[in-house]
Amino acid sequence: MVGGGPGAFIGAVHRSAAALDGNMDLVAGAFSSDPEKSRRQGKALHLPPDRVYGSYGEMAEEEAERPDGIDAVSIVTPNFLHYDVAKTFIGKGFHIICDKPMTTTLDDAEDLCRRVEANDIVFALTHNYSGYPLVKQARALVEQGRLGDLRKIVVEYPQGWLNRRLEAEGNKQASWRTDPERAGAGALGDIGTHAEHLARYVTGLGLERMCADVGTVVEGRPVDDDASILARFEGGVRGLLHFSQIAAGKENNLRLRVYGTDAGLDWHQEAPHRLTLLTDINSDAPQQVYTHGRASLADSVQPFIRTPQGH
Amino acid sequence: MVGGGPGAFIGAVHRSAAALDGNMDLVAGAFSSDPEKSRRQGKALHLPPDRVYGSYGEMAEEEAERPDGIDAVSIVTPNFLHYDVAKTFIGKGFHIICDKPMTTTLDDAEDLCRRVEANDIVFALTHNYSGYPLVKQARALVEQGRLGDLRKIVVEYPQGWLNRRLEAEGNKQASWRTDPERAGAGALGDIGTHAEHLARYVTGLGLERMCADVGTVVEGRPVDDDASILARFEGGVRGLLHFSQIAAGKENNLRLRVYGTDAGLDWHQEAPHRLTLLTDINSDAPQQVYTHGRASLADSVQPFIRTPQGH
Amino acid sequence: MVGGGPGAFIGAVHRSAAALDGNMDLVAGAFSSDPEKSRRQGKALHLPPDRVYGSYGEMAEEEAERPDGIDAVSIVTPNFLHYDVAKTFIGKGFHIICDKPMTTTLDDAEDLCRRVEANDIVFALTHNYSGYPLVKQARALVEQGRLGDLRKIVVEYPQGWLNRRLEAEGNKQASWRTDPERAGAGALGDIGTHAEHLARYVTGLGLERMCADVGTVVEGRPVDDDASILARFEGGVRGLLHFSQIAAGKENNLRLRVYGTDAGLDWHQEAPHRLTLLTDINSDAPQQVYTHGRASLADSVQPFIRTPQGH
Amino acid sequence: MVGGGPGAFIGAVHRSAAALDGNMDLVAGAFSSDPEKSRRQGKALHLPPDRVYGSYGEMAEEEAERPDGIDAVSIVTPNFLHYDVAKTFIGKGFHIICDKPMTTTLDDAEDLCRRVEANDIVFALTHNYSGYPLVKQARALVEQGRLGDLRKIVVEYPQGWLNRRLEAEGNKQASWRTDPERAGAGALGDIGTHAEHLARYVTGLGLERMCADVGTVVEGRPVDDDASILARFEGGVRGLLHFSQIAAGKENNLRLRVYGTDAGLDWHQEAPHRLTLLTDINSDAPQQVYTHGRASLADSVQPFIRTPQGH
Repeated sequence: MVGGGPGAFIGAVHRSAAALDGNMDLVAGAFSSDPEKSRRQGKALHLPPDRVYGSYGEMAEEEAERPDGIDAVSIVTPNFLHYDVAKTFIGKGFHIICDKPMTTTLDDAEDLCRRVEANDIVFALTHNYSGYPLVKQARALVEQGRLGDLRKIVVEYPQGWLNRRLEAEGNKQASWRTDPERAGAGALGDIGTHAEHLARYVTGLGLERMCADVGTVVEGRPVDDDASILARFEGGVRGLLHFSQIAAGKENNLRLRVYGTDAGLDWHQEAPHRLTLLTDINSDAPQQVYTHGRASLADSVQPFIRTPQGH
Repeated sequence: MVGGGPGAFIGAVHRSAAALDGNMDLVAGAFSSDPEKSRRQGKALHLPPDRVYGSYGEMAEEEAERPDGIDAVSIVTPNFLHYDVAKTFIGKGFHIICDKPMTTTLDDAEDLCRRVEANDIVFALTHNYSGYPLVKQARALVEQGRLGDLRKIVVEYPQGWLNRRLEAEGNKQASWRTDPERAGAGALGDIGTHAEHLARYVTGLGLERMCADVGTVVEGRPVDDDASILARFEGGVRGLLHFSQIAAGKENNLRLRVYGTDAGLDWHQEAPHRLTLLTDINSDAPQQVYTHGRASLADSVQPFIRTPQGH
Repeated sequence: MVGGGPGAFIGAVHRSAAALDGNMDLVAGAFSSDPEKSRRQGKALHLPPDRVYGSYGEMAEEEAERPDGIDAVSIVTPNFLHYDVAKTFIGKGFHIICDKPMTTTLDDAEDLCRRVEANDIVFALTHNYSGYPLVKQARALVEQGRLGDLRKIVVEYPQGWLNRRLEAEGNKQASWRTDPERAGAGALGDIGTHAEHLARYVTGLGLERMCADVGTVVEGRPVDDDASILARFEGGVRGLLHFSQIAAGKENNLRLRVYGTDAGLDWHQEAPHRLTLLTDINSDAPQQVYTHGRASLADSVQPFIRTPQGH
Repeated sequence: MVGGGPGAFIGAVHRSAAALDGNMDLVAGAFSSDPEKSRRQGKALHLPPDRVYGSYGEMAEEEAERPDGIDAVSIVTPNFLHYDVAKTFIGKGFHIICDKPMTTTLDDAEDLCRRVEANDIVFALTHNYSGYPLVKQARALVEQGRLGDLRKIVVEYPQGWLNRRLEAEGNKQASWRTDPERAGAGALGDIGTHAEHLARYVTGLGLERMCADVGTVVEGRPVDDDASILARFEGGVRGLLHFSQIAAGKENNLRLRVYGTDAGLDWHQEAPHRLTLLTDINSDAPQQVYTHGRASLADSVQPFIRTPQGH
């Protein structure tokens, strides 16, 4: 792991997620650009001192030399470092698990793509919400044609944690996420990417045209914290995306609705184990609610169910 | 009542609503432009034959003559008739209860306003959703400053009843509502007006600027059936309005969210007796849920509660 | 109407409900045993003075004489009067709409049954919750055999309005409802009757055996305010009923769950326009949610839908 | 780990849960009484062959000898083995993490208690639902006196997975869980224990008296699969517990409601990150909804929050 030092946010999430299936062990890390903090975190994580590094360059170098070196690296640094860390580890032939967004510029992202291909490695970008079984079920329903031809996609993601200027109050997360140098973007890059990915993952459609209202609500903040986008997806499917970090009191309300000629679907991250298939009002069918861990989920979804039904 | 004949939709709603408080009696009507149908409906409604009319002109004329004539008229015709019916009854000095939208052109609406003033009568436009006690509570919370300064308003209204071309299948409602001549507008006029009014009623703010994506999804339909609008409300408050009649499987999902510097609020028509005050995530307060019929509702709301708590 | 004077609770509910369909007019009343209060209420309800009575005996007498006399009487007095008022009006040949519970003793109820039959009148007891379209849909699903053989019925009704001793604070409702003389029973009679009726209405099964834990939680209250009942319904179907008036903070949480060999169902009064058909977990079917005003409701339910879909 | 072989149910849950915080490694196991199956599972879990054992006796013996031996053992066998496995490992001084129920007899449980004390080890029984932050918040609210004096506790746990006779269809879980020899009990022991523990954890009150309706609904099943219990908790607090494995279509609906003199609370396992504080209907306060990851949770709860707010 690179990043994820004391007080960091997403590193712990990656560590727990990686541990769930028992197929990965955390064995080495460069947890901070401050070697002392890196060591402290390595100790807290029960790692042997010789595999806790003061810099990611050093880590890539030394792990490549070890016969028991790492197989893959998880990159959980602030966004602006993703590119260089990834490039460094790809250069040594390691697989990459990288937190989103991939890089802060399109050029950097395309450069990484070329390197990934040249080195024949796996590069995984953690759009985590597509890991929910019911999101996979949504995709399966679209693929099975249960919605008919798609007509409209609405995806929203209101959060309220930045409705105050937390970055001026010493909040570490808020600090780098609202700093254009370190984050590379504001709400659009931080949560808009999740919204876009969720829509694309479920429908298979990319965005083609957009008319956006992107702005900054909290005074003095140098990045956007609120955005609404009128869109057309591939095939002319109408779209609406909106997300915000100043939606006071909202936690993590990512929600997707897709409407087709025959039916619609509705999924909400805060009740992630339910998916509603909105049957046509004028049809004989009542609404269908798919729930976690039941036989009614598609075969393609079953391998991704990790908890017993109802949990 | 003018309109609301056999098979009509909104007439019965007006009749039930008017009856709830026992302060109005339905005593006369011109229920259809077809005198036979009007008579039939009058009979079904237990009215004396001499107060069931073959035309609204005749009704206005005769009721104005009677010593026991009506006090007010409820206009529940297709939209294109609102203007002339209203003008006719205003001319006789009757108060007006008119279904929305008021008229099909701005000129007509402004003309009615002048006549209302000149005749010193009451003109009530039935934006019914503002009648819910919890919507009134939302307005009270905004007025009390519980949200702080308003920053963003999101109002949505997805319906799915027109996701097929019902107007080609003999559905009476669908027929006139998708006919530009009789409806004067599509989704924008039919449900967009409710969305706009709800936002204005709760926040007190009117729309100032808009960038709209208004379109027709169902082929062959001559009016809009889907719209999304980027907006600025008065005072520069950011806004997003979206509504649709082709949101397959959705029933009547009118929903309002308002976000301020201190808190937000969330109300949904399909669970109308709950209102969530979204307290700041970083504050000590949990979310607050106002419910129907409790002492915690504002004094200004109490007179509008017609059913026992929890009903 | 008999009862329903100034400050009364259920009278206004009966009046609104009766008015909804436009098939009944309130034309006469004995609204209070205090003639002055009765007159005051009659005036507020826009009744002519000669049809507002000082006692129900007088009303029955005089209305029977009038050529335009009432067809039916709505009895909304405290429970202890139901029997005598009903007997009086049955004796004059009027149909009866009586608030539940029917009487305060079984003997009285059976006596009324005999009189109803002898006079060939309609006696309607207002177990109002069976009027919801989705409750009727629940009954239709049971009748259609969608649940298979019934095995278990759970009905609950927690309320919290009496968790304080309101009757000692001058609350009129609380006063008579906790007075054994006037109410004839406590929670068991007031809300237990609704619970029992709902179970019976949906499943068609009566209670056969019970083991009950009925008690009084609030000190000094002479009637029960909390009860749980282990039961067997007809056919040996297992049952559980519980209801309470001291469930602090609960409003009107009547809920019914029925489980069969093939499926279950779940209905909740506070979200009355939804009904969940709980398909077998091990089957291919997702849960089914019936909603208000859709074509998927049974034909037998359609006539009872009074509001547009989603309302 | 002892138990948790190929196809087992709770072993994988224990492994994921143990891995979440990065403070435990799975290093050894006796996964099945069939040595071949144990080896297969060990390999799948990436364990070195010399730490995969053919029996738990062997495992306890050898791990006690190793300088790098285990610190604690997780017991996830069918219930009837809990006692002997625990006794064996306690005898070697290992700490114990044991799935519930502890043993199949009270004598065995008390014997283990004595051994735990004598050996000064930690014995953890995995009543997992008390691990939810919002359950801990419920306990904090009770401790803070926010409910006033407790009056009534209702805990329910309907499941539907055994509404068919799955044990006759080759379902491994169903087989041993409905076998009195291996399970030691039916629904009462399997899920009733969770219900009782949840009530006790949140309120601090144990059961004192019970009147139970315990039965078997599915023909041919030798253990109970449905139960309702009228109860008194310590201090005379009224109680109702009900749980079922034949509640067709229900997944894992563990729910707790507690009512006090001042307020109530309501928590539901299928929406585990919300907790409602039911304020008195007659008070000025709206309902309060505590949600996951907010500052409004008690300090004592904060260390147990593992995922970001809204997740």
